[in-house]
Amino acid sequence: MQEVSGGNSGANMIQDVVTMYDLIIVGGGPAGLAAGIYAVRYGMDVLVLERSVVPGQISLTGVIENYPGFASISGIGLMEHFREHAEAAGVIIKTADVEKVKDAGDKKIVVTYDEGELESRTVIIATGAEPRRLDVAGEDKFLGRGVSYCATCDGPFFAGQDVIVVGGGDSAITDALILSDIAAKVYVVHRRDELRSCELLEKRAHKKGNIEFIWDTVIEEILGEELVKKVLLKNVRTGDRTEMPISGVFVSIGILPRTELVDVDKNKSGFIKTNERMETSVSGIYAAGDCRETILWQVVTAVGEGAIAAVSAHEYIMVRE
Amino acid sequence: MQEVSGGNSGANMIQDVVTMYDLIIVGGGPAGLAAGIYAVRYGMDVLVLERSVVPGQISLTGVIENYPGFASISGIGLMEHFREHAEAAGVIIKTADVEKVKDAGDKKIVVTYDEGELESRTVIIATGAEPRRLDVAGEDKFLGRGVSYCATCDGPFFAGQDVIVVGGGDSAITDALILSDIAAKVYVVHRRDELRSCELLEKRAHKKGNIEFIWDTVIEEILGEELVKKVLLKNVRTGDRTEMPISGVFVSIGILPRTELVDVDKNKSGFIKTNERMETSVSGIYAAGDCRETILWQVVTAVGEGAIAAVSAHEYIMVRE
Repeated sequence: MQEVSGGNSGANMIQDVVTMYDLIIVGGGPAGLAAGIYAVRYGMDVLVLERSVVPGQISLTGVIENYPGFASISGIGLMEHFREHAEAAGVIIKTADVEKVKDAGDKKIVVTYDEGELESRTVIIATGAEPRRLDVAGEDKFLGRGVSYCATCDGPFFAGQDVIVVGGGDSAITDALILSDIAAKVYVVHRRDELRSCELLEKRAHKKGNIEFIWDTVIEEILGEELVKKVLLKNVRTGDRTEMPISGVFVSIGILPRTELVDVDKNKSGFIKTNERMETSVSGIYAAGDCRETILWQVVTAVGEGAIAAVSAHEYIMVRE
Repeated sequence: MQEVSGGNSGANMIQDVVTMYDLIIVGGGPAGLAAGIYAVRYGMDVLVLERSVVPGQISLTGVIENYPGFASISGIGLMEHFREHAEAAGVIIKTADVEKVKDAGDKKIVVTYDEGELESRTVIIATGAEPRRLDVAGEDKFLGRGVSYCATCDGPFFAGQDVIVVGGGDSAITDALILSDIAAKVYVVHRRDELRSCELLEKRAHKKGNIEFIWDTVIEEILGEELVKKVLLKNVRTGDRTEMPISGVFVSIGILPRTELVDVDKNKSGFIKTNERMETSVSGIYAAGDCRETILWQVVTAVGEGAIAAVSAHEYIMVRE
């Protein structure tokens, strides 16, 4: 399970290390920064590593209206508030891409591509997740302008309008059900002629008066001007192409957590398993936010998980002092 | 377990009811308002009941520096942001004191002192908790000016200063350990000559160089000018009184959740037990925030729990449609 790189044999690997941190947080999104804020308040020597200058999937989100305290704010704007807060609290944030987090018992080794190897007594994985993309023309262009990867986040912007959900799994049908209470009409576009979702969800969808299924079909292009106006659909059996006017396209074909960098227990989709203390299967390594197996992936839940992970890391160190 | 007041015999009790809500949220603090924001976004017909005009224990908190996005804000200021946000999102907040939440199967009956009985398909209990108080002179006057009930929240304001923790249980010793990394010196004032906390915590406290125990002693008065300057201590064995200069008094003698209004499974301290979906032992009744059994009671965790409770309540209704 654990890759041991400490001890004598690994001594040369850690020659660049100048400090033993109490806590290194991998990921500078909402979970990571919340963890950082709590950790410095506990007097911990903490470092946040974020690979991009504008951190987090949240930065790709157009408008956020469900993080309490900010009635309406851009994803980038909210992240700026988080970052300013964290830095004011004394959190040090470094731009570095992490290749691997290794467990060497009482210390953890964080291998980065750009900053060498760093040592820490504890690590919080807050690397987030990315939605699987359609990879079609218009998808990037209309992100936040009609294209969304989160019905819970963006559904309310489409009240009374017609929307498409792409996908056939549980999350796609759940999204369709959520949107059916908000939008005028919900079309579920699925590349097969049957759903992969559970029967119960399917029954509920069929009972809704405003959910319609479009089988054997994929989106080939998303079109519009300032906002999405229509999609080009292709029937994969007949090859027929049709244009369809639509206001919103919700892509719900899976989420890819960024967790390959750490060897801890994960579910089959790659999300890290933790208990309520955010402890992973490896002692001293915690997970918080979108990369963690849970039932709701939102900013509002990520921050709480980050705080709990920091409390647990602090507790871990206190026990060993 | 459940008090049935529906059916024929109880028909007269619900004559005032004009609406069946999808969701009634009892409590308008961070958890309750976050739940409300999520619920209206799911298209639910939702009502928040808050007994006081200035809601939540948070309003009693001086300065909050650990809710991500607000580097430093008063408790009242943060609650104003939350309330404005909730109202902008369409959440209806009513001032009403709830006497009892009754389970009548597919509907729940919320009995209020001032607004009669209300019916709802689901209920979220977000009634919060209150710290047990010392009930000594100066305690109210210096709240937020040296007197605190939360080491995690307020500890950082006392960096390099001397503080007292009052209490002898696990939470008091945990608070002392947290403060020992921040404050210069931590005195634990306890009315008995031994701790009620677990041995492991006690050992850790004794190993710290800057934690000192003052046994058989209570605080009789908290004194100061603008801020706390000293306390009057009384030895309960000898009756001797001494003054002691101090900057902060952390009261850690228990937390009282406000949960007597609902019949669901609770722990021995009265906190409501839930699973990770915030489901209580009664179907359709959820709990979130400080009134819930958990490992960290903070604004940052309460909002996430509120959001999850709203998602679960929405799911509950979807299944039954």
